[in-house]
Amino acid sequence: MAVDKEKPGEYPYTRGIYPDMYRSRLWTMRQYAGFGTAEESNKRYRYLLSQGITGLSVAFDLPTQMGMDSDHPLAKGEVGRVGVAICTLADMERLFDGIPLEKITTSMTINSTAAILLALYVLTARRQGAEARRLSGTIQNDILKEYIARGTYIYPPRPAMRIITDVFAWAADEAPEWNTISISGYHIREAGSTCAQEVAFTLANAIAYIEAAIAAGLGVDTFAPRLSFFFNVHNNFLEEIAKFRAARRLYARMMKERFDARHPKSLMMRFHAQTAGSTLTARQPDVNLARVSMQAMAAVLGGAQSLHTNSRDEALALPTEESARLALRTQQIIGYETGVANVADPLGGSYFIEELTDRIEREAREYIERIDAMGGTLKAIEAGYIQSEIQSAAYEYQREIEKGDRVVVGVNRFRSAETQRIPRFQLDPAAERRQVRRLEEVRALRNARLVTDRLKALEEAARGTENLMPHIVHCAEAFATVGEISDRLRKVFGEYREQ
Amino acid sequence: MAVDKEKPGEYPYTRGIYPDMYRSRLWTMRQYAGFGTAEESNKRYRYLLSQGITGLSVAFDLPTQMGMDSDHPLAKGEVGRVGVAICTLADMERLFDGIPLEKITTSMTINSTAAILLALYVLTARRQGAEARRLSGTIQNDILKEYIARGTYIYPPRPAMRIITDVFAWAADEAPEWNTISISGYHIREAGSTCAQEVAFTLANAIAYIEAAIAAGLGVDTFAPRLSFFFNVHNNFLEEIAKFRAARRLYARMMKERFDARHPKSLMMRFHAQTAGSTLTARQPDVNLARVSMQAMAAVLGGAQSLHTNSRDEALALPTEESARLALRTQQIIGYETGVANVADPLGGSYFIEELTDRIEREAREYIERIDAMGGTLKAIEAGYIQSEIQSAAYEYQREIEKGDRVVVGVNRFRSAETQRIPRFQLDPAAERRQVRRLEEVRALRNARLVTDRLKALEEAARGTENLMPHIVHCAEAFATVGEISDRLRKVFGEYREQ
Repeated sequence: MAVDKEKPGEYPYTRGIYPDMYRSRLWTMRQYAGFGTAEESNKRYRYLLSQGITGLSVAFDLPTQMGMDSDHPLAKGEVGRVGVAICTLADMERLFDGIPLEKITTSMTINSTAAILLALYVLTARRQGAEARRLSGTIQNDILKEYIARGTYIYPPRPAMRIITDVFAWAADEAPEWNTISISGYHIREAGSTCAQEVAFTLANAIAYIEAAIAAGLGVDTFAPRLSFFFNVHNNFLEEIAKFRAARRLYARMMKERFDARHPKSLMMRFHAQTAGSTLTARQPDVNLARVSMQAMAAVLGGAQSLHTNSRDEALALPTEESARLALRTQQIIGYETGVANVADPLGGSYFIEELTDRIEREAREYIERIDAMGGTLKAIEAGYIQSEIQSAAYEYQREIEKGDRVVVGVNRFRSAETQRIPRFQLDPAAERRQVRRLEEVRALRNARLVTDRLKALEEAARGTENLMPHIVHCAEAFATVGEISDRLRKVFGEYREQ
Repeated sequence: MAVDKEKPGEYPYTRGIYPDMYRSRLWTMRQYAGFGTAEESNKRYRYLLSQGITGLSVAFDLPTQMGMDSDHPLAKGEVGRVGVAICTLADMERLFDGIPLEKITTSMTINSTAAILLALYVLTARRQGAEARRLSGTIQNDILKEYIARGTYIYPPRPAMRIITDVFAWAADEAPEWNTISISGYHIREAGSTCAQEVAFTLANAIAYIEAAIAAGLGVDTFAPRLSFFFNVHNNFLEEIAKFRAARRLYARMMKERFDARHPKSLMMRFHAQTAGSTLTARQPDVNLARVSMQAMAAVLGGAQSLHTNSRDEALALPTEESARLALRTQQIIGYETGVANVADPLGGSYFIEELTDRIEREAREYIERIDAMGGTLKAIEAGYIQSEIQSAAYEYQREIEKGDRVVVGVNRFRSAETQRIPRFQLDPAAERRQVRRLEEVRALRNARLVTDRLKALEEAARGTENLMPHIVHCAEAFATVGEISDRLRKVFGEYREQ
């Protein structure tokens, strides 16, 4: 056994993608945040940076995610609510005011409008004097899981896939350090999937993106090194550790055997992890600190490259400064006090963990074979197969809780009569009005003719096969809004409605 | 490798003392508590029981630990401060009022006066209608670590050892389910020892107790099944897990090879664990929840039989009801939500953990050999060897913190300007007066003649070689106080002064 023992940093990377893992550098401590206007979010980012986060993570509000401006009738009441409202380059510049984008990595949770926000980010960096080539960060840009689990889609799947492959192709030349996608099991798991389903459906989506990019003429090793992943860290401590190991191995094998990738970076699964929001309870919110601590420890023992720890109050409201700081401190305790960062894959070799790793890999592989047999991921989504598998798992999980077979401390057992009062975050109710007023100012001051021309050029490109990214950059540069750019694409691509 | 793979529940018990571990029964969730008078502590115990603790753990105040009554001039200001004040059987009955002692296990952190408190416990149970034979629980009764690290000793080591072996002999017949000692590395570690020292010096103390009992004529298998242990769970997650595995293996081998023990229970190290109070910080007290969560997880992955999780506010004051509940919830999360209780020794086989287990066992064994060469534990304590080894380690640890080589989150890195306000526990300042008044009432109402006679009989027994326990029970039954009983023994045995 000692002879053929796999080492960390060796194919198929079960034991981690780097030989020395956190010994040379800790994971990126990246706390997801954003609310109200760009100024308010900027203030929170600066606070988190002062407390020791090592990467930014931007939450956008629903209108921004859905390609609607803050003054859209459907945006009313949603502006700045679950994330920051970004309409134009002016907002984006305020969002990162005083934060040198060349020196930090930024993750943006944005999908249907990911290309637009990436363009705004690159333009903001350029105005700071930073080249796109030097920028590092991630856009989520994972539309397939939106149809499956999360719901913020705009266009039908096929044009949506085109935008994504356009981003892959554009970034390969223009922003080679940028992670062009973060293929996300997180929301699949939050929707109630099992652990093996999370791995399987995430990799099935990866297959679809890779096939689409290859079909668009890209060589696998030109874009695959910039594919990244995003997983949940749920309650089952040992299973979650094994999950990360299984996902890395399955992905490496798939990239080599199925896609004939050769570049070592094409074979390495790099992933961000976030503790499971759905496991947090509104009752006894301080108890969430224990849940998050354990989940975060599992992510680190599983070899995550980046981590968000949820705040204790997330089942109640957006996190306060205090609760966000506390969540970050949990990562710092793991990184600096527990000693686990001194060893790569410390649980490797454990009889139980190795067996569990094999089992999860096998179960995920079986799902992927079933999806292949159905004609691939898009077909499986269109047939509702993936969605219904998740729904069955979610139903089973819920039933276990209701029957008391699955304990949720403080909810179906160990309830307390006492209500725990913790300070709640309050959104500034005037933020929406301020945001709309600023949008009006930008519209009044910009070169309207230039905007019209560039939007028109974008529309024409959308009707053809040209790469859309340079056009989106042009539009954004002229202060076209997120809503306006999206509307042009809507006009060409149409909108998706769930069956 | 698969052929000679050691299984949980098999000698030398590296992988746990039971084959199925927590699958058949979770560890005992035992929260250490006690303050003020018996009534106040009783109220806290009932509260903790209502919240789901599965075992009691009694903290006594310093006068009780030092064999002084609440009206002793040196007790002033200390009555009920770090634990409950217990002077007589009347107090003990109030302490457990409404708590059926036959149905719960109770751990009592008491050493110099352990025999007296055990007598009071047995008498209280008897008045509830429960036989001593049916009682289960633990007295700490570990005097050697008091000389080494904790400081609440009364008598010189040799008579102190006699009281302990008397308890062993008495309980073997009278209270066969009772753990007659809890040999404690906890305070050795809190005093600043290394992980290997904690194991080594705890086992060196165990050797001394076992040798003393054998010298007193007891067969090893009559008392060894009731020896239990108490360890710290410190920050270093993987090292702590390995520590518990190493300690179990070293103990099993020692019992078999050195003491020729035959009864399987004589070979099994059963231990209580407590998270490391010394790692908690007064700044940002909520951050302690993350520390405690990780430490508690390590205790469970290491196979503890019983666990106390510290409250976040313990660096500031005694825990409030809320913080004590929260600490308990952390155990419940581990037990009921994380799934780790479904597997015995889940990390067994891990290359890193197995190597670390071997290393800790080896280092501890080397220490024990050195102590043997010095003529045994008592000699090594008298020579100050064990104390000075701990002091060197503590000094090194402190220097690392001061130099910033060892990070303490919120203290030497990641400090916050904000002060976090949490409610602090307030002792009732009138508790001491109430306790003294009650003691006076008991003295006024009891049969003074009976008390004098029985104390005299105890004194005579102490001058001879008779077992002291039946005499202590007699005295306690007649409402002799903890101070009076201790004073009689002081008269015969003298008092120990540190050199």
